[in-house]
Amino acid sequence: MTPIETAIKMTLDRWYGSVASLDKVLNVLTDDQLLKETAPGKNRGIYLLGHLVAVHDDMLTLLDLGEKQHPELTEPFIKMADKVTTELPSVAELRDYWSGQRALHREKFDQFTADQWFEKHTAVSADDFAKEPHRNKLNIIISRTSHLQYHTGQIALLK
Amino acid sequence: MTPIETAIKMTLDRWYGSVASLDKVLNVLTDDQLLKETAPGKNRGIYLLGHLVAVHDDMLTLLDLGEKQHPELTEPFIKMADKVTTELPSVAELRDYWSGQRALHREKFDQFTADQWFEKHTAVSADDFAKEPHRNKLNIIISRTSHLQYHTGQIALLK
Repeated sequence: MTPIETAIKMTLDRWYGSVASLDKVLNVLTDDQLLKETAPGKNRGIYLLGHLVAVHDDMLTLLDLGEKQHPELTEPFIKMADKVTTELPSVAELRDYWSGQRALHREKFDQFTADQWFEKHTAVSADDFAKEPHRNKLNIIISRTSHLQYHTGQIALLK
Repeated sequence: MTPIETAIKMTLDRWYGSVASLDKVLNVLTDDQLLKETAPGKNRGIYLLGHLVAVHDDMLTLLDLGEKQHPELTEPFIKMADKVTTELPSVAELRDYWSGQRALHREKFDQFTADQWFEKHTAVSADDFAKEPHRNKLNIIISRTSHLQYHTGQIALLK
């Protein structure tokens, strides 16, 4: 394994480890618990779960891996704050989306070569990327892992 | 910049970005707010801040950068759960430790070469490292960034 392959493995291991951490939290929480606020007046578990699914869905386009699977989640879980709309999928549906997404991501990521991880992501121009080569696909995984951990810490408070 | 230097930059940028995120949260919270529980019955802000300082202090030894600056924090903030002891530093002291530590880490990390980041950390044996080269110093930064984000999400609920 070359150092660059080691660096990619470290990043992906942390991503999968973070996904597994949230799985573990979700497995001990009931749907009713996920309908509660993480702290008084703050986002509910259902909102944070939907938010994570929506943000991770958006990764597919950023990584140039095709269309979003659940474009209908962008409005209620990214553009809107929690408790603005009551028209949300059920917790059970969001759990299904989360599981399906996890499997799809792994399947897609397994096909990436080392070089592909260092290609530009779709939200940066070729000119900007030439000056800022860190704005690559692997960096999307790094930033989304941070985001996932942040909200997992909050959802874990419902236990 | 070589791909490996880019990978190191991405990891360190995310670490510094996560440290800056917690700084931002701490700057809007009063000491009194940090004495509150993040959610009913859960860890208080002061405990999570002390826990982060203690865990990051331990990074110095893991990265072979010298002795801990605050060994007295291990007992109350890592070994003990919150609210077990009342003998804790004040929030003001912990804020000072956090700021000092942030500066010290940056000074030390700035001196690392790319090769040094891929050296084994101190908690893995040479034999194990030969088989598992991902157990290196850069990976300590990756895992501690995840841990920091997890608890920052919780402390942010005090806002």
